[in-house]
Amino acid sequence: MKKYFFFIVVGAFFVTQLLVAQEVPKELENIISPEIHADQTVTFRFFAPKADSVQLTADFLPPVKVMSRFGIVDGPGTVNLMKDKNGLWTYTSKTLDSELYSYTFVVDGIKTNDPNSPYALRNSASLTNVFIIGNGRGDFYLTKDVAHGTLTHGWYLSAGLKMNRRVTVYTPAGYEQSTEKYPVLYLLHGAGGDEDSWSAHGRAIQILDNLIAQGKAKPMIVVMPNGNVVQDAGYGFGRDGFYKPQFLLPRSMNGEYEANFMDIVNYVEKTYRVKATKENRAIAGLSMGGFHTMHISRFYPNTFDYVGLFSAALVPREDATGKVYRNLDETLKVQKDNGFKLYYIAIGKDDFLYQANVDFRKKLDGMGLKYEYVETGEGHIWKLWRIYLADFAPKLFR
Amino acid sequence: MKKYFFFIVVGAFFVTQLLVAQEVPKELENIISPEIHADQTVTFRFFAPKADSVQLTADFLPPVKVMSRFGIVDGPGTVNLMKDKNGLWTYTSKTLDSELYSYTFVVDGIKTNDPNSPYALRNSASLTNVFIIGNGRGDFYLTKDVAHGTLTHGWYLSAGLKMNRRVTVYTPAGYEQSTEKYPVLYLLHGAGGDEDSWSAHGRAIQILDNLIAQGKAKPMIVVMPNGNVVQDAGYGFGRDGFYKPQFLLPRSMNGEYEANFMDIVNYVEKTYRVKATKENRAIAGLSMGGFHTMHISRFYPNTFDYVGLFSAALVPREDATGKVYRNLDETLKVQKDNGFKLYYIAIGKDDFLYQANVDFRKKLDGMGLKYEYVETGEGHIWKLWRIYLADFAPKLFR
Repeated sequence: MKKYFFFIVVGAFFVTQLLVAQEVPKELENIISPEIHADQTVTFRFFAPKADSVQLTADFLPPVKVMSRFGIVDGPGTVNLMKDKNGLWTYTSKTLDSELYSYTFVVDGIKTNDPNSPYALRNSASLTNVFIIGNGRGDFYLTKDVAHGTLTHGWYLSAGLKMNRRVTVYTPAGYEQSTEKYPVLYLLHGAGGDEDSWSAHGRAIQILDNLIAQGKAKPMIVVMPNGNVVQDAGYGFGRDGFYKPQFLLPRSMNGEYEANFMDIVNYVEKTYRVKATKENRAIAGLSMGGFHTMHISRFYPNTFDYVGLFSAALVPREDATGKVYRNLDETLKVQKDNGFKLYYIAIGKDDFLYQANVDFRKKLDGMGLKYEYVETGEGHIWKLWRIYLADFAPKLFR
Repeated sequence: MKKYFFFIVVGAFFVTQLLVAQEVPKELENIISPEIHADQTVTFRFFAPKADSVQLTADFLPPVKVMSRFGIVDGPGTVNLMKDKNGLWTYTSKTLDSELYSYTFVVDGIKTNDPNSPYALRNSASLTNVFIIGNGRGDFYLTKDVAHGTLTHGWYLSAGLKMNRRVTVYTPAGYEQSTEKYPVLYLLHGAGGDEDSWSAHGRAIQILDNLIAQGKAKPMIVVMPNGNVVQDAGYGFGRDGFYKPQFLLPRSMNGEYEANFMDIVNYVEKTYRVKATKENRAIAGLSMGGFHTMHISRFYPNTFDYVGLFSAALVPREDATGKVYRNLDETLKVQKDNGFKLYYIAIGKDDFLYQANVDFRKKLDGMGLKYEYVETGEGHIWKLWRIYLADFAPKLFR
């Protein structure tokens, strides 16, 4: 066979990149950003010879106090990058703890993603870059060289909501090769989220793979549905096409989701090899998903043996008019009397929902419903929800 | 139940957005970009009061001639946006054909994603925004209100490559509810791609859902493996973490992938309900994946009844030293003599691989191996690979 050199161009956008590359000095052709060093400092780089200022906004920088409609809250900090003679701007962080971090650049006042990293997650309508530092808690969020579970994006028919709805399902390593039946954790997202939030921001796949590989959690199926009843699927995956995401969709907390939750359970129990009993069903959720979890678990009060409320939005709402929300105290008492294995409540001290959780725990104390309580620092952030999941999952199905 | 108003903040990044919002005049609080109008013109908007220039780079603009190491090629065109008194820059396109389009902004010389759209695909190391115009061919790329197949990201053990490797699998609507067995299309990506390319850039899920719903294609399983033997998974999904993507990975075209392809077929035929016969196996690929397809289909010359080469990189390479590449003519003749249902070759007239495909067809003509040939306009772009898939899939398993 003759030997030639051969080149490939993939698409017009690669050509754009060549074009840009021609303007860049040789030593800048392969800019690495972010670069994580062995000492867990991180260097950020941005090539912008004509810019007057390049800043980094990141959740590991000292937070700034921000006036918002919720009062004064912590916002991510900002720091200036320094420009060299070639127009390359750089900043190196102090040593960072092992964690998943988020950042963006601000170039002459305009928020910009890192052009040298495609790793970004959606936050409302825009994308935010992410990176992970290992050697500690962050190892749980990395895809390690262990046996991997399978991630499935399927669709179930919701008879109640009268539509096919997208649902994300994790089956643990070995599921395909075995004939065993598995317990199921239903894991619910918060406002602004969808069926991809726990696998994206939440790193639920990596957390479960790693916990199961270490023998710390039982092999389980994890079902991540979409809690917004006006959507058939998360932004970009449904029949409404590519439209601008908004924070809180209408009807997400009016009872329709909770009242139709059994459509999801029935689909899962028909489609997957599951142990379809109360002691093999768990449900947990963050923020709005914690609100959903509390209501679903007491509205179907003999269905779930494990309940997890992560920074739960346990506050009554004006639009909470559905029949699901009636008789809160009575149904909680039925749930208590029916018995369960674990009622888990976790929240950060700085969460704006902290007091709502204090009030809810008082109610549970008053009726003698026993729960496990985890109080951490910090507020209403994904970092905590990953930590709560990694703490909660090992307690299930024991 | 008492009724309060209640607010939720999800994470520090939402607060950033509030902060930015405070600087924005009221009428600019919900910028829509891109906005697709009924007449199929599209308005792009970018808020940048301090910028001196904002440009749009897009694949629907008149292309510019670009000097690259492949000679003079077409690059995406660029156009200036106009600034209003509030600092909002806008541009409205002419009427566009129904299609999936890509674009980015360039703000004072810096390439920037659209901050008002999270819909972006990875191209090498960076992200490029996308949108779809329906009412024509683009309808095939939209998630329509039809029965949906399931998308699965699983892992197979490659004994030959000695690692667990990620693979993306589409099962058609109804798969979970039936006991039927299905035929399988193996669909291979090009250089710079991975196991997510066909479901992301290629819209393969939507194309198959829509073709099957319309009765134009038979229900089939589509298997989208990773063709880079140095990776266990695409960028960000494997054991190497988040690292900077490069265009062509080493060892992707040295024969190792083709020689170990049966590890994938065996996994699929063990894991899914498939018809495991030659007449129920198809293989197709774009560019490097077309090169893989040609070699796999003749190296295992009695395995696939349907073969599709989309803009195939049918050019010998210096690193193509594997045993797979020996005896090309002899094994093609064996493949021909064994018989097959369809050998499909498609390419654009402006493709830099056009002449290589002319030469390959001459070889096939010389040996009397009959193929179906589709020649289109344009070059080496995803638009054509989506069109070729939508043309090829209906011909399978008839």
